[in-house]
Amino acid sequence: MLIHPDRLFPCERSAREVARALYDNVRNLPIVSPHGHTKAEWFALNQPFPDPAQLMVQPDHYICRMLYSQGVSLEELEIGVRDGRNPRKVWGAFAEHYHLFRGTPTRIWLDQTFEEVFGLSEPLARATADLYFDTISAKLQSPEFLPRALYERFNIEVLATTDSPLDSLEHHKAIGDSKWKGHVVPTFRPDPVVDPDHPGFLTNLDTLAGKSGEEVGSWKGYLAALKTMRERFERLGCTATDHGHPTAATADLSEFEASGLYVRIKAGQADASQRELFRAQMLTEMARMSLEDGLVMQIHPGSARNHNHALFERYGPDVGADIPTPINYVEGLRPLLNRFGNEKKLTIILFTLDESTYSRELAPLAGHYPCLRLGPPWWFHDSPEGMMRYRQSVTETAGFYNTVGFNDDTRAFLSIPARHDVARRMDAAYLAKLVVEHQLCEDEAMKIAGELAYSLVKEAYRF
Amino acid sequence: MLIHPDRLFPCERSAREVARALYDNVRNLPIVSPHGHTKAEWFALNQPFPDPAQLMVQPDHYICRMLYSQGVSLEELEIGVRDGRNPRKVWGAFAEHYHLFRGTPTRIWLDQTFEEVFGLSEPLARATADLYFDTISAKLQSPEFLPRALYERFNIEVLATTDSPLDSLEHHKAIGDSKWKGHVVPTFRPDPVVDPDHPGFLTNLDTLAGKSGEEVGSWKGYLAALKTMRERFERLGCTATDHGHPTAATADLSEFEASGLYVRIKAGQADASQRELFRAQMLTEMARMSLEDGLVMQIHPGSARNHNHALFERYGPDVGADIPTPINYVEGLRPLLNRFGNEKKLTIILFTLDESTYSRELAPLAGHYPCLRLGPPWWFHDSPEGMMRYRQSVTETAGFYNTVGFNDDTRAFLSIPARHDVARRMDAAYLAKLVVEHQLCEDEAMKIAGELAYSLVKEAYRF
Amino acid sequence: MLIHPDRLFPCERSAREVARALYDNVRNLPIVSPHGHTKAEWFALNQPFPDPAQLMVQPDHYICRMLYSQGVSLEELEIGVRDGRNPRKVWGAFAEHYHLFRGTPTRIWLDQTFEEVFGLSEPLARATADLYFDTISAKLQSPEFLPRALYERFNIEVLATTDSPLDSLEHHKAIGDSKWKGHVVPTFRPDPVVDPDHPGFLTNLDTLAGKSGEEVGSWKGYLAALKTMRERFERLGCTATDHGHPTAATADLSEFEASGLYVRIKAGQADASQRELFRAQMLTEMARMSLEDGLVMQIHPGSARNHNHALFERYGPDVGADIPTPINYVEGLRPLLNRFGNEKKLTIILFTLDESTYSRELAPLAGHYPCLRLGPPWWFHDSPEGMMRYRQSVTETAGFYNTVGFNDDTRAFLSIPARHDVARRMDAAYLAKLVVEHQLCEDEAMKIAGELAYSLVKEAYRF
Repeated sequence: MLIHPDRLFPCERSAREVARALYDNVRNLPIVSPHGHTKAEWFALNQPFPDPAQLMVQPDHYICRMLYSQGVSLEELEIGVRDGRNPRKVWGAFAEHYHLFRGTPTRIWLDQTFEEVFGLSEPLARATADLYFDTISAKLQSPEFLPRALYERFNIEVLATTDSPLDSLEHHKAIGDSKWKGHVVPTFRPDPVVDPDHPGFLTNLDTLAGKSGEEVGSWKGYLAALKTMRERFERLGCTATDHGHPTAATADLSEFEASGLYVRIKAGQADASQRELFRAQMLTEMARMSLEDGLVMQIHPGSARNHNHALFERYGPDVGADIPTPINYVEGLRPLLNRFGNEKKLTIILFTLDESTYSRELAPLAGHYPCLRLGPPWWFHDSPEGMMRYRQSVTETAGFYNTVGFNDDTRAFLSIPARHDVARRMDAAYLAKLVVEHQLCEDEAMKIAGELAYSLVKEAYRF
Repeated sequence: MLIHPDRLFPCERSAREVARALYDNVRNLPIVSPHGHTKAEWFALNQPFPDPAQLMVQPDHYICRMLYSQGVSLEELEIGVRDGRNPRKVWGAFAEHYHLFRGTPTRIWLDQTFEEVFGLSEPLARATADLYFDTISAKLQSPEFLPRALYERFNIEVLATTDSPLDSLEHHKAIGDSKWKGHVVPTFRPDPVVDPDHPGFLTNLDTLAGKSGEEVGSWKGYLAALKTMRERFERLGCTATDHGHPTAATADLSEFEASGLYVRIKAGQADASQRELFRAQMLTEMARMSLEDGLVMQIHPGSARNHNHALFERYGPDVGADIPTPINYVEGLRPLLNRFGNEKKLTIILFTLDESTYSRELAPLAGHYPCLRLGPPWWFHDSPEGMMRYRQSVTETAGFYNTVGFNDDTRAFLSIPARHDVARRMDAAYLAKLVVEHQLCEDEAMKIAGELAYSLVKEAYRF
Repeated sequence: MLIHPDRLFPCERSAREVARALYDNVRNLPIVSPHGHTKAEWFALNQPFPDPAQLMVQPDHYICRMLYSQGVSLEELEIGVRDGRNPRKVWGAFAEHYHLFRGTPTRIWLDQTFEEVFGLSEPLARATADLYFDTISAKLQSPEFLPRALYERFNIEVLATTDSPLDSLEHHKAIGDSKWKGHVVPTFRPDPVVDPDHPGFLTNLDTLAGKSGEEVGSWKGYLAALKTMRERFERLGCTATDHGHPTAATADLSEFEASGLYVRIKAGQADASQRELFRAQMLTEMARMSLEDGLVMQIHPGSARNHNHALFERYGPDVGADIPTPINYVEGLRPLLNRFGNEKKLTIILFTLDESTYSRELAPLAGHYPCLRLGPPWWFHDSPEGMMRYRQSVTETAGFYNTVGFNDDTRAFLSIPARHDVARRMDAAYLAKLVVEHQLCEDEAMKIAGELAYSLVKEAYRF
C-alpha cells in the first residue's frame, strides 16, 4: 500500500480522531478547481492521454526542478528534444530518482495518484519502473481513462483553465457545444497583452487589435479591446482574471498620464521603470473593469522568472528556474486600494510566494479591505507544512471567511484529486487542533471544513 | 459553557498535565498591565460603562476591521454617527456576524468575558443577540460593574494608560487624590509633539510651550519643555514612555545639526526625509532623558497608519486601516545603540509587527545590548499562535530574561483578564513542551511561569 | 541527572517511539565536522586545555552575549584583561547566571558536556560553582582529557578548522607528520585577502605576495597568488573554502573591468560600493577556481559585524555584537549562478541568518541549481526550534538530498558531541513526525537519518 488512510492527520490520538471525523465529512464533496493549467483541448477532443513520461514527468515543474538540481540533465528527461523520443527511458530516470522526493508534496500527490487512479501498490523505484510504465500506458488507452471519464470519476464540478486573451478558446466553445456535462471554463490572463516585458508583447497588441476589432493605437482603443476580449471570455463561463506580475506594484495615473505612458509603451520606447509603471497601472485598470463586469481578480506576484539564464536561452521559459522574491503588498497595492479598496462588489484574491507577508501584510490587508480575499498557499507552499503555516499565520487576523478554499493550480490533471485531498486533510488537521484545544466546538469545525473544501470556493469565484 | 478549563493547552496528555499545573500556579496572580489604552476618567469618575455596543463593539479595532472586511459598513456600526443612535441594532449586527471571529483571539477574549464577567453561557449569535444586550446592559448599571469594582474584581495591581504630553492628567490626579486604592498611572507618549507628521503638530508645540512654561522657539527650550512634561508625568506615577513611529530609525546628530533641523521643523519647512530624521533624532533624545529620569522607553514601530485613504478622510484616524510594514531594526537602531546601548540603567522595550525580525534581528539585539528588552507579541500577533511563534523564535537566542512578560495593550477594559489569561495559558503551553521534552525541569518551569506572568513585568517597567 | 535519554523527542508516545528508534540507529555514528573553529594547535601540541573559564566561558559568544545582555560586564568576565586573572571568579559569575540560559541551546550543550564529558550530575549554580571548577580543572590535567584523547573519545572521523590563507598551517603539517591518526584539515577562508574592509587588508596583500611568491601588483598576479595558496591548503587535506561576506552579492565583470577595479582596490582608493563590488567579483572568482581545483565553496553571508561600536573600539572584533540582517540571495547570487550555476562538478553550500529566506529563496534555489546545496541552520538558528523550522521550511521544496547534514561551527571543542547529538535528535524528531503522519515508511526514515548524520556530510564536503 502506498498511502495510509490516516496520512497527514495529527499523531496525537484525540486530535487524530477529530481530524478523521472532519475529513470524512468533506472527502467526497465535489472538486471545485477555480485556478489551474489544464488544457480545454483534452476535454474537447477526449483523446487518450500520451505516455506516462509525457503526461506525468516532462510537464511537471516540481519533478524537473528536483531531478535537475541533483544532476539529471534536461536532455536525459528529453525536455526540448524532438527526435529519438524514448518515454520509457525518461520514466526510468525518474523512477531511479524517486527517492529524491521523500518529504515533498510531489511524493504525496504521486503515490496517491499511482494507487487510487492506477491501482499500483508497490513503491516506484528503479525495479518497478517498467511495471509502472506498462501499467499506466495500458490504462491510459482504455475508455475509463479518457479525459472526460476521469473528469467525472474525479467528481469535478467545475475546472478553470488559464488562457491568453489571444487564445481562440475554440476548445472551450467545443465543450460548450457538445452534449458533455463537464464544466470547463477559461480564465482571462492578460499578461501577454498588458506586460511590456512579455515575449512578443508588441506583436500581441496587433493580434489583440485584429481579434477585438478595436483600434489599439490609442489608450482608449487599447482599453476597449481588452474589455471586448473579457466579454468574449465571459460568454464562455469565465468568472475570473489572473495576473502574474513580477511585483505587487499598482498605480493610479490620470487618464492623461496613462495615455502618454501607453504611447511610449506602444512605441517600444519605455524604459524598465516605465514598463513597471505600465503593469502597475494595468492592474488598476483591470480592477476597474472587474468592478464593471464582475470578473474576480487574482494577483500572483513575486516570481523572478527564468532566473537561470542559460536554461532560458536554450529551452525558453517555464523550465523550472522561477525563484520567489521578497514582495511588499502594503505599498504596492496602496494606489489600487485607495481607488477601489472599499468596493464590496469587487473581489481581488491575493497570492504570495513570500510567507513572511502572511501575518505582516496579507492577513491585516484582507482583514480590513472589503474587496480583498486571500488565496491558498501557492506553488512552493502548496504542501502540508505550507498549508499549516498559512492557516496558523492568517486565521487569527483574517479569520476563515477572508480566505477562499483551495486552488490546485496544476497542469497535472491526474493529480487533481490528490491535491485537493491534501488540502482537505490539512484543513481537518488544523481544525482538529482548534477543537481539541477548545477554541472551536466540533460542530463549528465541521461546518468550516465544508466551507473551506467547497462553498467558500464557489462563493469567492462566483460559480 | 462558552469556555473550557483546558482551553489552549497542548492536546497531548502529558504535556497538558504539565501545562495545567504550571497555569494553576499563576492563574490567580495579580494583573500588572504596564501598557494599554484604558481611560483614567473611568476610574476617576466611576460612572457606569455605556451600553454594550459603545463599550465592546465600536471602540474595538479587531471587531470593526473584521466586520468591515466582510461587507458590514461603518454606518451600520454607527461609527462616526452622531444622531439616531441605536446600540441594540449595532449589537445585533455584531452578533449576526460573530461566526467571522472563529479561530481568532477576539472570539477567545469575548467568550471568556461573556461567561466570566457577565455569566452568559449560550453562544452569541443572531438568536441570542437581545439576551446578550439586555443582560450586559442591566449588569453594567449595577454597583458590582462600576469601573473601580471591576478593577478590584479583576485583581489588577497596576494599570498604565497612554497619554499625550498635552493631556491635563486631571483624572490621574483625581484618582491619586481619592481614597481609592487602585493604581492607575499615565504613560508618556510624546508622538503629538515629536512627530512632525502628527495632525496638529505645530499647534501642539505652542500648547507644549504654554503647559511647560518653556520657550519652544529654540531646540534647547523645546527639549526643556519635554523634560518638564516628563517630570509632570513622573509625579503621577508614570514609569514609562511610548513611541509609535512609522519606522525604527534613530539618529545621533550633533547639537548644531539637531538645532538647525528643529528650526526647519518648527517653521513647517521640512521635507519628508527631514521629518523622518527629526523623529529619529527624537528617539535618541528620549533615550538620553530616560537615562537621566529613569523612565522606561517603549518603541512600537512599523505601522503604516491610515492605509485606507477614503476611510481616513471620512472618519479620521484609528478606524482599522493601519497595516504593518517590513522594518529594519539593525540599521534603524544603530545610532541610538551606539550612543546609549551599553547603559545598564537604561531600559528600552522593543515591539514589532514584523515577525520575521524576531529571530533575525530582535532576539540577537536583545541578547546582546544591556539596555534592550523584548516586548510581548503586539497587536495582530497578540494571539495563541502569535505567542507560540514569539517564544519559539526568541527564547533560544534571547532567553526568558530579556523579555518582559505580557502587555494587554487594550482599550477593552472588560477583556483584560481574558487577555492576560490567554498569555498565561500559552506560556504554560510553551513551558510544558520544554518540560516534556526534557529541556527544563518542572520546578524551573514553575518559577519561569511566575516570572513571565508577574515579576518580569514589574521589574522591567519599574513598578 | 542533568540530561534525560529522551530529551528533544516529541512528547506524543508513538512519535517518541519512532524518534527513539531512528536516533538509536545513528547515535554512535562517527562525527564528521566539516566546518568549525577549533584550533589545529591543540591537536598538534596535545597540551592540556586551560582552566574552565578560559576553555568554556571566555571564548564562547553565546555565553558572553547573554551575560552581557543581562548586565554582566566584560571586565567581570576578564575579556580583554591581561593581569590579575582569576578564572575561578569568572566561572563563578557564569555559574551564578546560569539560569539565564534556560530554554537556550547553550544550556543543552553544556549540560550534556558537564554530564557526559566530566561526569557532573548536579545543576550548575552559584552553590555548585566551585565543585564544577575543581572537577573540570582536575580532569583537564589528566591524560584522558588531552585534545587527542578527547578527539578519539568523541569518535570524530574528520575535523575541519577555518584558516586564513596567510596562516602558516604549521600545526596541520605537524599533525600530518605525526603518527597520530586524527584527521584535522584546514579550510580556506580568504576574507582577509579578498575583503577590502578586512582589518589590515592592504598589508595582507603584501604578505600574500611574500607567501605565494607571486607578484600581486596586477589582477593576474593576485589571482595566481590565491590559486597558489589554495593548492597549499589542498596539500594538507583541505576540501573546502568559506566566505563570510556582509551580503550575498556576486558579480561577473569582464577581465578588463575586474582588473581596473583591482588596481583601485590595491591603491586603497575604492569607495564603499566598489569594495562591495570587489567582494562580489571575488565570490565568482572563487567559484571559478573551485570548479578547477574541486574545493567546495561555503557562503556565510548576512552578519552586520561589530554592531556595538564602543565594544569594538575597546575589545576589537568578535565580542558578540554581530547581528543578522535581511539578505537577498535571489538577486545577489544571480551573476555567479548565471556563470556557473549549471556546473554539476561545482558545489556551493549556502547558509543564512535570515530564516525568511528558507522557503522563499534558498529552498527554491537549491531545488533547482545543480551546484547549490543548503547548509544546516547557522549560529542563532543552531537550536532545536531552529532545526525544526529549517526542516519544515526547506524539505518540501528542496528535499533531503539538497541539504548537507550538520555543521557544529564551533570553537567549543568539548561541546562538539553534544551539538551533533542535538542535530541527530532533532532530525529523528522531524522524521518521526513524517513517519507517524504516514509520509514516510520507517525504513526510509531510518535510511535518511543515517544520511543526514553521516553520509550526506561526507559526500557534500568530499571527504
